[in-house]
Amino acid sequence: MPDSADTLKTGDSWLVRPAPDDPHLTRRLAGQDHEGASVDIAVVEERPLTLFLNGQEIVTVMTIGDRPEDLAVGYLLNQNMLRDDDEILGVEYDDDIEVVVVRTARQTDFEEKLRKKTTTSGCAQGTVFGDIMESFDETVLPADARLQTSWIYALSKAINLTPSLYLAAGAIHGCVLCHRDKPLIYMEDVGRHNAVDKIRGYLHVNGIGTADKILYTTGRLTSEMVIKTVQMGIPILISRSGFTAWGVELARRAGLTLIGRAKGKRFVALSGLDRLVYDADPNQVPEEDRRHRRKSVEDQDAEART
Amino acid sequence: MPDSADTLKTGDSWLVRPAPDDPHLTRRLAGQDHEGASVDIAVVEERPLTLFLNGQEIVTVMTIGDRPEDLAVGYLLNQNMLRDDDEILGVEYDDDIEVVVVRTARQTDFEEKLRKKTTTSGCAQGTVFGDIMESFDETVLPADARLQTSWIYALSKAINLTPSLYLAAGAIHGCVLCHRDKPLIYMEDVGRHNAVDKIRGYLHVNGIGTADKILYTTGRLTSEMVIKTVQMGIPILISRSGFTAWGVELARRAGLTLIGRAKGKRFVALSGLDRLVYDADPNQVPEEDRRHRRKSVEDQDAEART
Repeated sequence: MPDSADTLKTGDSWLVRPAPDDPHLTRRLAGQDHEGASVDIAVVEERPLTLFLNGQEIVTVMTIGDRPEDLAVGYLLNQNMLRDDDEILGVEYDDDIEVVVVRTARQTDFEEKLRKKTTTSGCAQGTVFGDIMESFDETVLPADARLQTSWIYALSKAINLTPSLYLAAGAIHGCVLCHRDKPLIYMEDVGRHNAVDKIRGYLHVNGIGTADKILYTTGRLTSEMVIKTVQMGIPILISRSGFTAWGVELARRAGLTLIGRAKGKRFVALSGLDRLVYDADPNQVPEEDRRHRRKSVEDQDAEART
Repeated sequence: MPDSADTLKTGDSWLVRPAPDDPHLTRRLAGQDHEGASVDIAVVEERPLTLFLNGQEIVTVMTIGDRPEDLAVGYLLNQNMLRDDDEILGVEYDDDIEVVVVRTARQTDFEEKLRKKTTTSGCAQGTVFGDIMESFDETVLPADARLQTSWIYALSKAINLTPSLYLAAGAIHGCVLCHRDKPLIYMEDVGRHNAVDKIRGYLHVNGIGTADKILYTTGRLTSEMVIKTVQMGIPILISRSGFTAWGVELARRAGLTLIGRAKGKRFVALSGLDRLVYDADPNQVPEEDRRHRRKSVEDQDAEART
């Protein structure tokens, strides 16, 4: 288990939580603030990691550097370069040269796919292949999944209050796999697609199902975020941020429940409304205290004055 | 001049402003809000655009779809696939098939470079090549450039109050090229790298110099954002958002002035401090009214209740 994640065995629903205290994930840097005072602030790391599938170099991504094995496996699965039924013989990470090699029984040549590479909007690893849309259209999401509005509020609150790199240093995306009103797996990274790929990798390695899960992201609901959620077989996607039109179009095509702008009592659902169960009184939900959500960063700035 | 941008001839410093009223850039979509009420909200478009350099297909990016010619030229320049001294024979955009072809006098084969492709953190087109770091290290930024803190405050205010797709629909990044305390070129896109590439393209096509300019971005100060700013020869980069450690490292290596977390009276400078001139009293700067900045979106939600 990497330093960079804290897996709780009992008494808590968490499987993976952020590791804001991991010295490998943030650095303190000295500068000057708006009053000309010396400050040193916590800044997230950003490192190159090169992914190999067997003999083939696939891509170099920029990542905070935690969980390279989960990131590699999840990336390859989300790119359809690995199939769920592929036998993974081993995943080797060499932190000296920042390389991860995933070895499989099945050999494939990806030159052709790599030439068809498409860079999409959204963050790092914004890469899809033509054949991803085929598998997208074949995916059938569970119709019986439900989303109680009380879960949206409970999840937002739990995630906002969980110690994280975001609260410690900012400038980072988070993705959280949830079950009902409980967050289970909270991954952070400089690119939110790294975060969702790390979740995919963790789920695959640990054999965790997705049909009854909810994906929460701090990032925007772009086409790529929707495609990855559907590929993972997750029926519900929630974001604090907004939508793109193609993201909504794809969500409707796949029957994905898509909730955006989820802050405080507010949210907007633009797809998969039939799964929504209104069991909470929005007027009982307090507005988010933005100062609290940012406090840790601003306190650091203040305390760091020298 | 594309529909999607408003070029002012006189009486205003603006060369390019956002076009929130352009019907091609947003769409109204119907859904349901936190109270179960029907709403329809403005959502930004996201379309594929495939870039060709002469006979070579380079990449397909997701973009809002304005200024495809600027995006294509700027992308190719920022990827070092085009050189500033290359003669561009023509830029052809076909909106039926969403393709842009840039034709140059010099022919090059990019197969080798495409194999060295690196996907980096940050948003769409997160792609750099090994040789970009070489040109990065060769770039010398003007030492005599200055940044008065009063300009930071004036620019933030002007950009926040300028009608934009962000204010109309959210879920979009903005990049603004500025001169002293005046914003000149404000580009928005679903990926902030599209926005900065469109600025690079516009500058190249219109022969505008960068040595005395400032780049303002709504996005994070990642390695790629710093690399592109330095490649463009811009000595100062300002963001509302935070830093990554490698972004700061590269800024210090290049002598780029790097200002982050610029909100209200607050900012933090982590590189190129010698260019900073403290000529404003931060306590005279009002904190940003977050409600104002978000009002347009929330009003739309409210007004759209049917």
